[in-house]
Amino acid sequence: MSEHFADRVLSACRAKGNSLCVGLDPRWDLLPGQLRHAYTGLTPESIAGAFEEFCLRVLDVVAPLVPVVKPQSAFFEACGPSGMLALQRVLGRARERGLITILDSKRNDIASTAMAYADAVFAVGGSEGLQAVWPADAMTINPYLGRDAVEPFLESARNAGAGVFVLVRTSNKGAGQFQDLDCAGKPLYRHVAEAVAAWSAENTGRCGLGDVGAVVGATHPPELALIRQWVPDVLFLVPGYGAQGGSASDIAAAFRGDGTGAIVNSSRGITASFPAEEPHWEQAIGRAARAAIDDLARDTRMGRLRR
Amino acid sequence: MSEHFADRVLSACRAKGNSLCVGLDPRWDLLPGQLRHAYTGLTPESIAGAFEEFCLRVLDVVAPLVPVVKPQSAFFEACGPSGMLALQRVLGRARERGLITILDSKRNDIASTAMAYADAVFAVGGSEGLQAVWPADAMTINPYLGRDAVEPFLESARNAGAGVFVLVRTSNKGAGQFQDLDCAGKPLYRHVAEAVAAWSAENTGRCGLGDVGAVVGATHPPELALIRQWVPDVLFLVPGYGAQGGSASDIAAAFRGDGTGAIVNSSRGITASFPAEEPHWEQAIGRAARAAIDDLARDTRMGRLRR
Repeated sequence: MSEHFADRVLSACRAKGNSLCVGLDPRWDLLPGQLRHAYTGLTPESIAGAFEEFCLRVLDVVAPLVPVVKPQSAFFEACGPSGMLALQRVLGRARERGLITILDSKRNDIASTAMAYADAVFAVGGSEGLQAVWPADAMTINPYLGRDAVEPFLESARNAGAGVFVLVRTSNKGAGQFQDLDCAGKPLYRHVAEAVAAWSAENTGRCGLGDVGAVVGATHPPELALIRQWVPDVLFLVPGYGAQGGSASDIAAAFRGDGTGAIVNSSRGITASFPAEEPHWEQAIGRAARAAIDDLARDTRMGRLRR
Repeated sequence: MSEHFADRVLSACRAKGNSLCVGLDPRWDLLPGQLRHAYTGLTPESIAGAFEEFCLRVLDVVAPLVPVVKPQSAFFEACGPSGMLALQRVLGRARERGLITILDSKRNDIASTAMAYADAVFAVGGSEGLQAVWPADAMTINPYLGRDAVEPFLESARNAGAGVFVLVRTSNKGAGQFQDLDCAGKPLYRHVAEAVAAWSAENTGRCGLGDVGAVVGATHPPELALIRQWVPDVLFLVPGYGAQGGSASDIAAAFRGDGTGAIVNSSRGITASFPAEEPHWEQAIGRAARAAIDDLARDTRMGRLRR
């Protein structure tokens, strides 16, 4: 874990020839029928079991194809303790398969509370001697509380050689209600993006990118292009491609000239890309991942990662 | 659960004659020595066990004294699945003891993901037929993502007769970095407070308060007073009293004229109010809770709740 987070991300993207991230957002109603029929009872334990088997099998399919996966904490949490155990196993399998893992949990708090959230993901013998209980290479955080609430996450991540992605401009339709407010001549999300750039510049890798990235939705192409101009050396995590409506050309501007600088996430567009009763759903997921990689290579600079 | 959330809060405050909330933020280094010696090994399981025993015993002490408790999710999460099991038991005991419970987890996300976070706390047969896995009467959420990201939480809370507290002006020193930015002539936190007031007005109880409250720190008294003026009918959850430095007179302005309208949280000021090796730590916690109640009754309108 001693290599810089951004350098590890870049190596992984170069090795796979793409910057696609597969989001693991398991939802009962979108699982393959095969699994829904096998795990009966609709108890938290049976749903967690189905989520775990689904994600482990998805990981086996996508590990040879993509550099990064992003489990969504909420769906595991909703299954209670057994869901959190499933999340542990999914993160462990992803790491065994050599994937970079981003835990999407959007945590935020202050002081020792923020440190507890961070240590749960990054601790290598944390404040209470504990190891991380759901270890990942990066996590998402929410910036509303300001610098001193972000710093415990940075400190914990840096101890582990890990990274943090800060919400800047999110992919939902109503994102602008607060994020677009004009604050002293600049939209709020620009203030946040510039703070991210300053945090990121505190610890840059050989590739020139820092260990603090920005979450910037694919669904607002003009804002995406502006943010890339304002903060050229920040790694972007771009949700909203695929099922949420963002196209490859919408996100072309997220990349730097050499094809680096952005990780593009697709969740349902890959993991729910088949009819409910499809028996060969793993093959369908593999095909959807390859199609997304080709789509992105054609329309974005991501293609330049290919040698 | 069919009574309106704000009415339930007000009844509980009147019954106890105060509006104090005891925060349950278990930290290993602040536990009574007695418990630290009993739970050895510093494993996630042993720490979770100590947290659970500590919180259950705190609940037994404070249940006759205060109306509300607020477990902090982060410290339980950091212990992994066994911590989440401990959190379940702590929430269950609080409810058995007739306490109003606020799960402090500051969740935020969009669409089905936000719904999963909300259902984990509020579901009464949720989208997947699941019950809430850590049921509480309210939870804290972060507003940065905007209205459509808040709505799934409101919907789920309203189905359960529960409430939501939105971060408006937080108690940390650096809270102002984004929250104080001047957005079109008003600080960002005022935009958020006004949005909270609008959401709150959608569903008010007999007491005139809505089911969407605002988190407003005790550590910034001028801002607290302003926010109370701007949004007179919003229930406040006020952290930062006690160990974080806010005094009773600092938060006097949070209350409405009749002594209602605010819940004041104290965590370490009550639950870590004794020397490490104090053998009679439960008595010390009871004394600290009664002292806080008296302090608040003297200097704030909270005293008017007493009949």
